[in-house]
Amino acid sequence: MDSTSPPAATRRDLLTRIGLAAGGAAMYQAMTALGVSAASTYTGPIRLDGDPKGASVLILGAGVAGMVAAMELRKAGYRVQVLEYREKAGGRAWTLRGGDRYTELGGATQEIRFDEGQYFNPGPWRIPYNHQGILDYAHRLNVALEPFIQVNHNAMVHGTRAFGGRPKRYREVMSDYHGGIAELLAKSTRQGKLDGMVTKEDGEILIESLRSFGALDRDLNYTKNVLTSDRRGFEKDPGGGLNARPVPSEPMSLKDVLASRGWAYLASGALYEFQMTMFQPVGGMDMIAQAMARECGDMIQYNRKVVGIQQDERGVTVAFEETGRPGQVQQARADYCLATIPLSILSQLEMNVSGPMAAAIQAVPYAASVKVGLQMKRRFWEQDEHIYAGISYTDLPIRMIQYPAHGYGSRGKGVLLGAYAFGPYAYEFTALPPEERVRRAVEWGAQIHPQYREEFDTGASVGWHRVPWALGCNGMWTDATRAEHYDNLCALDNRILLAGEHASYIPAWQEGAVLSALDAVSRLHRRVVSA
Amino acid sequence: MDSTSPPAATRRDLLTRIGLAAGGAAMYQAMTALGVSAASTYTGPIRLDGDPKGASVLILGAGVAGMVAAMELRKAGYRVQVLEYREKAGGRAWTLRGGDRYTELGGATQEIRFDEGQYFNPGPWRIPYNHQGILDYAHRLNVALEPFIQVNHNAMVHGTRAFGGRPKRYREVMSDYHGGIAELLAKSTRQGKLDGMVTKEDGEILIESLRSFGALDRDLNYTKNVLTSDRRGFEKDPGGGLNARPVPSEPMSLKDVLASRGWAYLASGALYEFQMTMFQPVGGMDMIAQAMARECGDMIQYNRKVVGIQQDERGVTVAFEETGRPGQVQQARADYCLATIPLSILSQLEMNVSGPMAAAIQAVPYAASVKVGLQMKRRFWEQDEHIYAGISYTDLPIRMIQYPAHGYGSRGKGVLLGAYAFGPYAYEFTALPPEERVRRAVEWGAQIHPQYREEFDTGASVGWHRVPWALGCNGMWTDATRAEHYDNLCALDNRILLAGEHASYIPAWQEGAVLSALDAVSRLHRRVVSA
Repeated sequence: MDSTSPPAATRRDLLTRIGLAAGGAAMYQAMTALGVSAASTYTGPIRLDGDPKGASVLILGAGVAGMVAAMELRKAGYRVQVLEYREKAGGRAWTLRGGDRYTELGGATQEIRFDEGQYFNPGPWRIPYNHQGILDYAHRLNVALEPFIQVNHNAMVHGTRAFGGRPKRYREVMSDYHGGIAELLAKSTRQGKLDGMVTKEDGEILIESLRSFGALDRDLNYTKNVLTSDRRGFEKDPGGGLNARPVPSEPMSLKDVLASRGWAYLASGALYEFQMTMFQPVGGMDMIAQAMARECGDMIQYNRKVVGIQQDERGVTVAFEETGRPGQVQQARADYCLATIPLSILSQLEMNVSGPMAAAIQAVPYAASVKVGLQMKRRFWEQDEHIYAGISYTDLPIRMIQYPAHGYGSRGKGVLLGAYAFGPYAYEFTALPPEERVRRAVEWGAQIHPQYREEFDTGASVGWHRVPWALGCNGMWTDATRAEHYDNLCALDNRILLAGEHASYIPAWQEGAVLSALDAVSRLHRRVVSA
Repeated sequence: MDSTSPPAATRRDLLTRIGLAAGGAAMYQAMTALGVSAASTYTGPIRLDGDPKGASVLILGAGVAGMVAAMELRKAGYRVQVLEYREKAGGRAWTLRGGDRYTELGGATQEIRFDEGQYFNPGPWRIPYNHQGILDYAHRLNVALEPFIQVNHNAMVHGTRAFGGRPKRYREVMSDYHGGIAELLAKSTRQGKLDGMVTKEDGEILIESLRSFGALDRDLNYTKNVLTSDRRGFEKDPGGGLNARPVPSEPMSLKDVLASRGWAYLASGALYEFQMTMFQPVGGMDMIAQAMARECGDMIQYNRKVVGIQQDERGVTVAFEETGRPGQVQQARADYCLATIPLSILSQLEMNVSGPMAAAIQAVPYAASVKVGLQMKRRFWEQDEHIYAGISYTDLPIRMIQYPAHGYGSRGKGVLLGAYAFGPYAYEFTALPPEERVRRAVEWGAQIHPQYREEFDTGASVGWHRVPWALGCNGMWTDATRAEHYDNLCALDNRILLAGEHASYIPAWQEGAVLSALDAVSRLHRRVVSA
């Protein structure tokens, strides 16, 4: 699977890369091409009224989709059994902590050595406010949430060929870009160059608004003064007592900002899925999946590797092997089967579904991505640079550094997301042994934070095409594959039904898994009740 | 003091009001006029080396400035005594909780009836990342911090004469404003209207950047599609399973956005003091002051109302009355006196300082502001509207509604900041009895959240000109008063020295109090050591 996957990237990151880095038009094409997605249509807990008449459902996979389906079907009166490949639940909703051990495809094993209380989320790591499905399950299962910080104005924007390779602060790039375009538009308007595009009356309000937006002075200049420094930061901050007067800083020219391409990162926080207020579970993303697993209890059977799915006119038989007993195939049977196994794996199993569903299962390639978690001996980003959570961006292969959004001000250690590589970068990264991925992330990151050299402690890395239970990060749709295959993928195929982020318009997000599961169980239930 | 104060507003809010609402030039003038401020020059704990030779210091006021000075002077070896008017420390760094009782000037008493765990900060409520002084004290005193959310893209923007009085989401106003100006500038550039202002080469990058910034399509239009909906929100969000395709929403025209004046609120989160990541102490702003008070221990004597300050060549004598014993004047004496009492009160005391300091003390009027805290029976803003923390803006006299940045997803109650009025609105509000302020805040807020009518539970309100120990919100400087009086206010006047937010370039912020105290004790110490 790894070697045959197409040039892939997660949708989000592909969008970030081509859209934000290469401009709106490219982004638009990409979004259209990927069958874009953003937010939830969840309107509250579902109610499955009516008698399931003792029907049984076999659910394959105890990830978020499988567990949501299990909880809802049990509540509706179904007999439910969940087969899970791993020794624990959650699937890609996964958190690595000290003491964990992870063996990837290829055989490399990582012993995670993070300190107590430290963690790294190789998969999902943030929840938008508009993902109401997963948020509601978190609330109902009493999972504590805290804000995830996407935009941090004090974080870095780094370009290897920009500003002599020296990182700038996000606030400097943002303020100078906003100020530069506001000055251009305000002056053009004042000079009558927009006549025909804007009425004189609107032009006056436009100029007024641009002064506010861009911190322009009365002559419509974006220039060195306290007004612009109160956006981009001061040369010397205001203080207290004597000698406390602030000294303004010198803005960069719009020409330099444009050439730096640092503007490419400014749109990220404006995207519907990255807007404020985002959340993360306190203690790691898998806290939601763990709570779901506790709720599911003994419905879930662990260490079951599915090897085949066969339906007949009376039910579905699933063949599986227990971990440690290869070749000893056992069977489970139920009236219906809901498979939440990633298509990257499902496409390799023998199963007797209709031609259209079989074609759909084969049609969706999986995105590549690599994350690296780096434990640092000291939270130097807070102590030295006053960066609290949020993301620094770079054009290096690590693409970004994310700072932990918890433990603010702690004098202890901290785990950075030291790389989140995708597309071609992810292939290169994935091909390396885990410790080499970590080594390179440290080497590259040191170009932004030289403290890495002193402070790096221990790391972990996950290349999603080497994850045995996923074989990729997420299903990648295009407009063409959506049109041809999506409905066939989601439709109930006699007694077999699919769910997961791949069966949604919100790929790569837990919300897609939740909503697809809710839709699947609702349709299954209607079938059972009306049968 | 209340009746004689000039047309005043807190600097921040004046800036928000005139700057954001009326445009950049007005804002620039206002910032210059107010002697602008934003951030810290704190570089870490101070060290007061050298022998204080047994010197004693009497500190007046156990607010943040007084307690910082007390902790540092004690550490340096001084004998320190702090006289505090109230029964507890913190001054304006104040949090109201259930069971508290507060009597304002005029005699109205409020019995606070918030539930356990609920609170309302009448004074400071947020800490910028660049206020490193107060943050460092919080860290060193082990005060847990959590993110304060300033911008929430899903919060409301409401204008009584905009959009038929119906609130819009911040994301809609922001996206449509950004898209509208990006379209204008991109098209002007493409049409050659900016020739002479931008080179052809820069123009190409500019257009590319505007596509990214404004979500423009390949024809440079900001129009109804998935790209713009992934900023402003969808008509129907993407979902999972069948019938899950998203439906784009229709943007507002730039003309309508300009006329609405909703753009005026967009710059707020870009200001240096409101940028991400901001903080609040877990449990209420006074948690920092409470930790300082514990650290100060019996240095602080409570219930001491200072009535006079007299210095001579050997020391300073402070006359005070104990609460409950009016007219029974007692005396305290020390080698030096550091007065952190607000100028609004200090200006009414007899004290023998030099002419220039006396003039400075009289020169600074105090800003008016009113806050109202409203406990709601249910967190409807989260449950019904998916607004988690952050601020909704309105042109109603309440000016804003802030949603609590803690307890996310709780099924219990929550306390909103139901009004933060300033300037003329604050006078009007302050003149009302407390329960009437609350009643009006509920009435006005219901125009944005109709749920107020059902869900309002209990409220509290503080008009700062009626707060006995402050007589106003903060010292208001102008360029002219700064030039004439600021250095005289801060200079050591023989044996008397002042500190507090009023003695800083960061008025109205705790950081101003911290930095002015550190500067004051440093200068005092140099005098003592070199004497």
